Amino acid sequence: MLRGIHPLLGPELLHALRTMGHGDEIVIADANFPASTLGCPVVRADGVLAEPLLEAILTHFPLDTFAPASAFRMAMVDTPDVVPPVCVSFQKIITRLAGDFPVEPLERFAFYERSRKAAYVVATGELQLYANVILKKGVVRKEELAQFG
Amino acid sequence: MLRGIHPLLGPELLHALRTMGHGDEIVIADANFPASTLGCPVVRADGVLAEPLLEAILTHFPLDTFAPASAFRMAMVDTPDVVPPVCVSFQKIITRLAGDFPVEPLERFAFYERSRKAAYVVATGELQLYANVILKKGVVRKEELAQFG
Amino acid sequence: MLRGIHPLLGPELLHALRTMGHGDEIVIADANFPASTLGCPVVRADGVLAEPLLEAILTHFPLDTFAPASAFRMAMVDTPDVVPPVCVSFQKIITRLAGDFPVEPLERFAFYERSRKAAYVVATGELQLYANVILKKGVVRKEELAQFG
Amino acid sequence: MLRGIHPLLGPELLHALRTMGHGDEIVIADANFPASTLGCPVVRADGVLAEPLLEAILTHFPLDTFAPASAFRMAMVDTPDVVPPVCVSFQKIITRLAGDFPVEPLERFAFYERSRKAAYVVATGELQLYANVILKKGVVRKEELAQFG
Amino acid sequence: MLRGIHPLLGPELLHALRTMGHGDEIVIADANFPASTLGCPVVRADGVLAEPLLEAILTHFPLDTFAPASAFRMAMVDTPDVVPPVCVSFQKIITRLAGDFPVEPLERFAFYERSRKAAYVVATGELQLYANVILKKGVVRKEELAQFG
Amino acid sequence: MLRGIHPLLGPELLHALRTMGHGDEIVIADANFPASTLGCPVVRADGVLAEPLLEAILTHFPLDTFAPASAFRMAMVDTPDVVPPVCVSFQKIITRLAGDFPVEPLERFAFYERSRKAAYVVATGELQLYANVILKKGVVRKEELAQFG
Amino acid sequence: MLRGIHPLLGPELLHALRTMGHGDEIVIADANFPASTLGCPVVRADGVLAEPLLEAILTHFPLDTFAPASAFRMAMVDTPDVVPPVCVSFQKIITRLAGDFPVEPLERFAFYERSRKAAYVVATGELQLYANVILKKGVVRKEELAQFG
Amino acid sequence: MLRGIHPLLGPELLHALRTMGHGDEIVIADANFPASTLGCPVVRADGVLAEPLLEAILTHFPLDTFAPASAFRMAMVDTPDVVPPVCVSFQKIITRLAGDFPVEPLERFAFYERSRKAAYVVATGELQLYANVILKKGVVRKEELAQFG
Amino acid sequence: MLRGIHPLLGPELLHALRTMGHGDEIVIADANFPASTLGCPVVRADGVLAEPLLEAILTHFPLDTFAPASAFRMAMVDTPDVVPPVCVSFQKIITRLAGDFPVEPLERFAFYERSRKAAYVVATGELQLYANVILKKGVVRKEELAQFG
Amino acid sequence: MLRGIHPLLGPELLHALRTMGHGDEIVIADANFPASTLGCPVVRADGVLAEPLLEAILTHFPLDTFAPASAFRMAMVDTPDVVPPVCVSFQKIITRLAGDFPVEPLERFAFYERSRKAAYVVATGELQLYANVILKKGVVRKEELAQFG
Repeated sequence: MLRGIHPLLGPELLHALRTMGHGDEIVIADANFPASTLGCPVVRADGVLAEPLLEAILTHFPLDTFAPASAFRMAMVDTPDVVPPVCVSFQKIITRLAGDFPVEPLERFAFYERSRKAAYVVATGELQLYANVILKKGVVRKEELAQFG
Repeated sequence: MLRGIHPLLGPELLHALRTMGHGDEIVIADANFPASTLGCPVVRADGVLAEPLLEAILTHFPLDTFAPASAFRMAMVDTPDVVPPVCVSFQKIITRLAGDFPVEPLERFAFYERSRKAAYVVATGELQLYANVILKKGVVRKEELAQFG
Repeated sequence: MLRGIHPLLGPELLHALRTMGHGDEIVIADANFPASTLGCPVVRADGVLAEPLLEAILTHFPLDTFAPASAFRMAMVDTPDVVPPVCVSFQKIITRLAGDFPVEPLERFAFYERSRKAAYVVATGELQLYANVILKKGVVRKEELAQFG
Repeated sequence: MLRGIHPLLGPELLHALRTMGHGDEIVIADANFPASTLGCPVVRADGVLAEPLLEAILTHFPLDTFAPASAFRMAMVDTPDVVPPVCVSFQKIITRLAGDFPVEPLERFAFYERSRKAAYVVATGELQLYANVILKKGVVRKEELAQFG
Repeated sequence: MLRGIHPLLGPELLHALRTMGHGDEIVIADANFPASTLGCPVVRADGVLAEPLLEAILTHFPLDTFAPASAFRMAMVDTPDVVPPVCVSFQKIITRLAGDFPVEPLERFAFYERSRKAAYVVATGELQLYANVILKKGVVRKEELAQFG
Repeated sequence: MLRGIHPLLGPELLHALRTMGHGDEIVIADANFPASTLGCPVVRADGVLAEPLLEAILTHFPLDTFAPASAFRMAMVDTPDVVPPVCVSFQKIITRLAGDFPVEPLERFAFYERSRKAAYVVATGELQLYANVILKKGVVRKEELAQFG
Repeated sequence: MLRGIHPLLGPELLHALRTMGHGDEIVIADANFPASTLGCPVVRADGVLAEPLLEAILTHFPLDTFAPASAFRMAMVDTPDVVPPVCVSFQKIITRLAGDFPVEPLERFAFYERSRKAAYVVATGELQLYANVILKKGVVRKEELAQFG
Repeated sequence: MLRGIHPLLGPELLHALRTMGHGDEIVIADANFPASTLGCPVVRADGVLAEPLLEAILTHFPLDTFAPASAFRMAMVDTPDVVPPVCVSFQKIITRLAGDFPVEPLERFAFYERSRKAAYVVATGELQLYANVILKKGVVRKEELAQFG
Repeated sequence: MLRGIHPLLGPELLHALRTMGHGDEIVIADANFPASTLGCPVVRADGVLAEPLLEAILTHFPLDTFAPASAFRMAMVDTPDVVPPVCVSFQKIITRLAGDFPVEPLERFAFYERSRKAAYVVATGELQLYANVILKKGVVRKEELAQFG
Repeated sequence: MLRGIHPLLGPELLHALRTMGHGDEIVIADANFPASTLGCPVVRADGVLAEPLLEAILTHFPLDTFAPASAFRMAMVDTPDVVPPVCVSFQKIITRLAGDFPVEPLERFAFYERSRKAAYVVATGELQLYANVILKKGVVRKEELAQFG
């Protein structure tokens, strides 16, 4: 446990987030996501829910302002036009903590393909369906770290 | 790079600090310290100076209020009563960032023995002599993390 | 995620519990516990609280009826006679799920020494102080598995 | 050994099943299957027969309702229209424990190709020929875990 | 699967038995034995029962004729003079396959101590209590291999 | 050393043969064969000759009756129609121990290509030239293991 | 710390530079560079700035005189014709320490592609944007080492 | 140090040469060769010169008489028709120790490409430029080992 | 295979012998020796007999002239005064190849204790009983390598 | 190869020297030294002689001025009062490059015991006997690195 760092972020996840750079992507995955077979490094967060984890990550992690989109969710398989409640919540958290970034839907298998190239997948214990979101890291500017002298 | 986290702390060091618990000790070692032969895990911080690194660590790391002493420096070999300038500086940084914790001197080989049992040694690039300090981790209380909701 | 298995138990923890045998001990440790420096294997459960994790483990893990005591908590340092609320809660969970097993207090450093010999330490994200408990595994009898034919 | 978990599932297999997600596949392979050369991770279950192992896995593992088929067997090489007795038995176990999922035949080398992409192969000690079956994992819904509070 | 080799012996166990020499010991352990915490290499045999495994091992493994005793069982904790049925069965299998070797009882913790120095522990899925036996390997003589020319 | 198992098969080779399944291939290679650069796992058998090793392997290893050919030798580079004496001997051993399987010649580089996909190469100390043979594993049937009850 | 060797170069970086040969490339990357996901080995230099590190490396590392260009920087994304101040500084350091080598601009994603094939990426703590430079190693001639006799 | 074996060959290099077979190639590389980035295993021989190392290797290593060429050098970049003195020396050593094998020139990047497929690169400390040579291993015949009985 | 090096010595054994220095010991162990449980590194030589292996090793390996004894055999358990035939043969080979070094008997468990401190144990396939010998390495003098110029 | 760094120091040795601190010791060992069995990390320098390697190391490595002695050699076994020529040479090199440090003799087994605690042993190819020397590292002072600005 450390002061000033969100307590939901354990040592592996902190390490992972700290190695990521501009344009790298991380997947917050629900409990049914095939996290281990996509070939990308996995950080386990069993027992942690997706929404508080998204809040914890965005406390320290900026989204990318260079790319056309920096947040992605999985579209529902049979009703792609319906936004599931957890994704509505994801959008609210992102807007509140990161700014005006729309969460773009991706068809299920396109979401898997994008995840293969991610820097990390965080496997949460979230039981809500479709609680998967990809975040693209932005630049941390010198001014944002001014508090550290 | 992450928001709200001291930028001098790289991924390995963040991971190390995050795994430490109540009573665990970390050594900030100068460039001449025999960091690799004491048998304790080493985090390299070549090119980083000891004083800013101490500041960076204490930004997030509490000292132990349960133990009789929670900060230690190496006493000068021939003039044990002289406090070297870098250690005067260490004391000021600790007092400012952690509170009223005197930095206790330890004879050179006693300092090495204590370091063997540390959780980590951070090998800095500090060229000032006697720029070694051991910190004992305290408890992070729930109230201190209240900002994260 | 698997049917019939407590969802708080991730793959590493399930593996750990499944390898344990009669008399082996596991430590459920709070967020300030020095889990990584005791020399015993660590399973991370950052972001998970101690009480639901104790419930999850006891759902599948019997306590030892052969030993004089099979559950231990850390005594408070300055007021060893006071039972902290989280430990009152631990006792209730144990009584409800495992049976009549008193949770024995151990002085802080005696608790650490016992932990060194444990099979695993589970490092939770619990922020309540003194939320540490050691469980000693009992025997699973054939009759208890009769449902699997 | 753990309460409430099928005793045929050892620590490696439990770990494997727990990391699998929606759409991931597992192969239960007989004693003559070339399990080690397909490039997919292998869990050894020497001395265990295929039918009880299929029962053990399906006790905790749902089949996929999104895919056109979620269970596959190897067709006999010379008499592809004959269903070998062990596969008749597989179908009965699947119907009883998982629901109405037909076990689709795949030509021998097509079965190997599909196995290469599986999450795991479990190498049993089954001596009946053609005792190979691929299972595709479905979603575990929150309601199914309601017993754990 | 190989011709002429007992099929219950998988690749890890065959490897283990083949590396053992005169005087080395192996533990066949029941499903409640603390196999993983004794510090000796473990071969998993989940789902395999102790009696057929003992038969499989003794098919290829001679007992030691140099030592005063070459087979050991765990004595019952409260009734050390009672021989549990599974141990009666062990004695019969040993007499039949290896010769006139009495299975000596060892008090529970003495059995654990002896196991620490074993070459391997085989963790079976045996649910009968006290189904633990230690075998000491003897010499294979040239004449016994004469069939291989 | 184990009873009933050919003594030329050491622990690594026994392990290798035991993991192989139907259709997997193994290369017995002479002392000049480029065993280490083909990318396939190597078992060293320095000091062992090819013909007794072939006998040892075929004592426990069936050839494949499903494939058009299950044994291959390297054709001589300049005189492809001449069968070198060691290969005449290989054919006799195979006929005697495995049955009526012709050993098919493969041009030198085709032999290397086939070896790349083998399960294992066994690097013997055989100094006769062209003493290389590939064996394709067949099925072990239940009846063949009947002796083990 | 060693005499005559630039103190900013820690053991990993010295090792890396010493293994590089003619034509191999190294990336000095700023704190926002996606260093860990390009698939090339990373040396961490958290807390070290890019300009002094470039000086430290060029103290011991010659640039390639055989290639058309031996130093590359990342062009600004929106204003490719503007040279950012840190890159003006890079050019001055290179001219002073290595000779007349122009630092060629590469479009952002072309810079990433070239980095994938580098021998190493050094991840600095530099917070200035666009502080990334690739250096191509030249030949060290015998005459340049004449001082060592 | 061993009797009868060239003392310049250390344990790693002896191991490497001993694993090589007919047609495998080894690169003796000078101190500026990009040995570590070609993807082929590297044996370090820092401080050893190329000519004595070539002599040491050819003391025990035959060249290939089956291939059209079995020794290759790097052609000079600007004056491909000039044979550098060290390569004249290589040719003399090869002729003296291995027989009539011309050392064929390869253009610089073609030499790198061929090196990628080599069994090993030996990274010497040779400071002469163009001191790189590839050797293709031949067959060791039984008669050549007759001294060992 | 290499010219001038005894062909029974494979790559691992050559590597092992080459790393040994003055006073280091190697055990040539028969097929019943408990090679894997003594805690010393093992080189497998399954299928190789002890006498030719002793010859192969002594072709390149000098015995120690500084120590009171440099060769040891295991005394027979019941008849310590009888020298088994294989040990008579060992003595002859040592006298012929290494010089006047008596092979000293050691009681069985003293032999095991000495083996624990050896540099390596070579596990042969020798089926003669008591075919175990420890060799202590001597110094290779410059003059002995004069042939290599 | 790097400018300004002694070319005899390869990447592993440079890394080793750079990690050493005040009071750490390194052994330069001759070709007969038992480097691999003392339990201390070994850097191979086969083919390199002891005297030039000592020169190379002392070019960058200060000796310890705090300790009563900082250089040690092995005394001759039978004539401890005779200083072997290579050790006379060691003393001259040390005096010339490091200053007035007498090389203290240590009895052979005392030398081995001290080597067990060294940071590294460098195994050279030196064939002169008694060419072993232990160096104790001193402090590098800021002023000595002033050239690097």
